[in-house]
Amino acid sequence: MACINNNFTKIPENYLFSEIAHRVAEYKASHADASIISLGIGDVTRPLCPSVIQALHQAVDEMADEKTFRGYGPEQGYKFLIEKIIKHDYNSRGISLDTDEVFISDGAKSDLGNIGDLFDFSNLVAVTDPVYPVYVDSNVMAGRAGIMGKNGRWSNIVYLPCSSENKFVPALPKLVPDIIYLCYPNNPTGTTLTKSELKVWVDYAREHGVLILFDSAYEAFITEPDVPHSIYEIDGAKDVAIEFRSFSKTAGFTGLRCGYTVVPKTVTASTSDGSHIALNRLWNRRQCTKFNGTAYIVQRAAEAVYSEQGKKEIKQNIDYYLTNAKIIRDGLSYAGMKLYGGVNAPYIWAKTPNNIDSWTFFDQILTECNVVITPGVGFGPQGEGYIRMTAFGNRDNCVEAVKRIAKIF
Amino acid sequence: MACINNNFTKIPENYLFSEIAHRVAEYKASHADASIISLGIGDVTRPLCPSVIQALHQAVDEMADEKTFRGYGPEQGYKFLIEKIIKHDYNSRGISLDTDEVFISDGAKSDLGNIGDLFDFSNLVAVTDPVYPVYVDSNVMAGRAGIMGKNGRWSNIVYLPCSSENKFVPALPKLVPDIIYLCYPNNPTGTTLTKSELKVWVDYAREHGVLILFDSAYEAFITEPDVPHSIYEIDGAKDVAIEFRSFSKTAGFTGLRCGYTVVPKTVTASTSDGSHIALNRLWNRRQCTKFNGTAYIVQRAAEAVYSEQGKKEIKQNIDYYLTNAKIIRDGLSYAGMKLYGGVNAPYIWAKTPNNIDSWTFFDQILTECNVVITPGVGFGPQGEGYIRMTAFGNRDNCVEAVKRIAKIF
Repeated sequence: MACINNNFTKIPENYLFSEIAHRVAEYKASHADASIISLGIGDVTRPLCPSVIQALHQAVDEMADEKTFRGYGPEQGYKFLIEKIIKHDYNSRGISLDTDEVFISDGAKSDLGNIGDLFDFSNLVAVTDPVYPVYVDSNVMAGRAGIMGKNGRWSNIVYLPCSSENKFVPALPKLVPDIIYLCYPNNPTGTTLTKSELKVWVDYAREHGVLILFDSAYEAFITEPDVPHSIYEIDGAKDVAIEFRSFSKTAGFTGLRCGYTVVPKTVTASTSDGSHIALNRLWNRRQCTKFNGTAYIVQRAAEAVYSEQGKKEIKQNIDYYLTNAKIIRDGLSYAGMKLYGGVNAPYIWAKTPNNIDSWTFFDQILTECNVVITPGVGFGPQGEGYIRMTAFGNRDNCVEAVKRIAKIF
Repeated sequence: MACINNNFTKIPENYLFSEIAHRVAEYKASHADASIISLGIGDVTRPLCPSVIQALHQAVDEMADEKTFRGYGPEQGYKFLIEKIIKHDYNSRGISLDTDEVFISDGAKSDLGNIGDLFDFSNLVAVTDPVYPVYVDSNVMAGRAGIMGKNGRWSNIVYLPCSSENKFVPALPKLVPDIIYLCYPNNPTGTTLTKSELKVWVDYAREHGVLILFDSAYEAFITEPDVPHSIYEIDGAKDVAIEFRSFSKTAGFTGLRCGYTVVPKTVTASTSDGSHIALNRLWNRRQCTKFNGTAYIVQRAAEAVYSEQGKKEIKQNIDYYLTNAKIIRDGLSYAGMKLYGGVNAPYIWAKTPNNIDSWTFFDQILTECNVVITPGVGFGPQGEGYIRMTAFGNRDNCVEAVKRIAKIF
C-alpha cells in the first residue's frame, strides 16, 4: 500500500489566511451591513498597465495564427524575456549574468517551494522570525524541520529573531546553518538591509559555506539609495546565493503568474562523496523534468514591463501603493502607533498597543473598525505583539481604514 | 555546507529530446539545404481555436479594468472552470465529482512530477515499459528508483513490459507495487486498454491496496466506443486512482499551460502509524504551499473549450491530427512497416525493419529521408526496436514525410 510522506502530518492544519478568512466570515454573518476594508492579504488591486495589456492581446493574436502559433516553449523560459531581465534588472546595476543562469517560472512561490527538491533532508535551515510561511512549510514537508515545539518553533530550524529591539536586522546565528532564507525588502516587516548589512551575510555565507536563498520579490518598492535591489550587488554573492524574483508585486501579475529565479553557475553544494556540484545544473534538470515552461503570452506580458512605456506605467502603480503606505504610516503614527517598514516596501509592520497579542488586536480592529489586518504571530513567534498592514488597496479604502483605526487610539 | 539531494546525481545526463536535437543539429550543420520534417516531439501545430482566442481577449480586457481585475485566484483553480470540467468531462460519462476533488494547474507534467511530494521514498513504483520519462525521472529524483542497471532499468522500479507480443496490454506484476503509473491512450505507443482490460487493473489495485496514477492526457483522441476516457468509468476506481488531464493536446494548450488533476476524497494512503489518510487533503496542502494558482486568463481560455462552439472547434483540430495519423498508418503499413496505435491517439508506434536498433533507424530516417522520429528505446528498454511518430504536424509535411519514408522500403 502507498505510504505517505509523513512530514505532511506534522504541519498544523490551520493556515494563517484561512483562519483570517474564517474570522471575517463569522463576523460578517452577524454584521451583514458592515463595510469591511482589507489591509490584510498582500494582493495587488491596480489593473495591469496598458503596455502589458497590449502585449497580451498581441501575443494572443499570434496564438490564433498557424504561422505564429507557439506550442511548448523552453522549460527555462524564452530568451527574449531572459535577455530583457538581465539587461534591465542586472546589467543596469553592474551585474553580469549568462542567459542560462535565469529561469522563468509561473511565480516565486513555486520556485521557493520547489527549490527544496535539490537538497538533502539533512540540511540545517535558517529563517528570520517573523517569516513568509512558505519557507518553513516547504521545509516541514521535506522533513528538514524536525518537530514543532510548544514555543511554536520547529526543532531543526534555526530562527533569526527580528524585532524592534534589533531594528529588524537579524544577528548571525550561533549554530552555522547550511541554508539561509533571506527576504529583503522583507515580507512581513517591510524593513530592509543596507548594502553593508547584507554584505555581513554574504561574507558569512562565503566563510562558512552557507547557501543563501534570497527572495527579492519586493525590490521594485525600494526608494532609498543604500538598499540593494539584488543580492548580487554584494561582491562574492554569485558564489553563494540564489535569487528569487517575481512580477507579481512589481507589475501586478498576481493573477497572471510569472516570476524568475537566478542560479549563477558558480553556486555549488556538496554531494555525498564530498565533491561540489553546480546547483544551476540541478535546477535545470528539476525544471526540465517537473515543469513545462511558462505560458508564452505571459512571458510576452512580462517582456512589456521592460519597455520604456511599460517601466513608466508600472512605476505609477508602485508610486500609488507607496503613497498608500505613506498614508498608513503618517496617519497611524500620528495616532500613536509604533510603525516599521512601508518606505521601501508595500508592508507596514506595527506594534500592537499595550502589548496585547496579535489575534486579540486583530479581533478588535475587525469588530471596532471593520478593518482586516494580518496578525504578526501568523508569521512566527517573534511576530507576536505585531500586526502587518498592506498598502495594496485602493486609495479611498486606505484613507478610510486609517481614519477608522486612528479613532480607537 | 548545503548538501544536495544525491538522487540527482543518479539521473543520466542525456535526455531523449536533447539527444535528438543534438543529432539533428549535427546533421543540419553539414547539410544546410536539407528540408527536415519532424514527426518527433509530441507538440501541437494547429493554432488555438477561435472560441479560446475570444475568451483570452475578453479576460485580458477584464485585467485592464480595476473593477474586473483579478489578483491571486484560488490555488485549486476557479470554480467556473472546475464546474465545467465536472459537467462535461465527468457527469456526461456518469461520473460524479465534488468541486474540491478537481485541482487546476499549469499542466499535467507539473502535477505528475509534483504528486511525488505526497509519498514516502520507500514506496515501490511500477511503470509500463516503454513509458513517458517523467514518471521514472521524478521518482529517481525522489530516491524511489534505486540504481540503474546495465539493462537500462532501475533496481527498485517494477517494469510492466508492453510489446507487440502482448498487444501492448501489460500483465499484472508478480511483485505487488505500492503505486502504478498508467497512461491510456498511451504515450508513446498510442495503444489503449478496453474497459474490461482497465477493470483488471482497478480490481487488482483494490484487492492489493495499490494506488493508480492514471494519465489520460490523450483521452480526447479516443474514437472507439469500448475505450474508457476516464479511469472513473470503472467501478471502484474512485477509491484507488488519481487522474491527470491536460488541455495541451485536447485544445492545443502546450504553450498556454493548463491541466487538472482529480483526487477523489475516497483515495487514501497509509501513514507511518498504519492509519489511512485522504490524499485529497495532502494534495490540497501541497498546492497551497508550493503553488499559487493558474493564470486567470488561461482558466477562462480553458473554460471556452467547453462551450458548444468551442467543442466543435477543438474537435476539428483533433480530427485533423487523427487524419494525419491515418495517413501515416495507411502509407507506412502499405510500404510494409508494422504499426500500432494512431486510432485513439496521436502517436504511431512502429517496429523498425529487420530488427535494427531504434537509434540506428533514427539515423537512417534522418539522413536518408530527412525526417525526425523518436527512437523507441528512449522510452525504456522495451522500446528498443521501435520508433514513435506523432501526428501533430501539418498535413503537407505529414504526407511528404510518409512518402519519403515509404520510399526506403
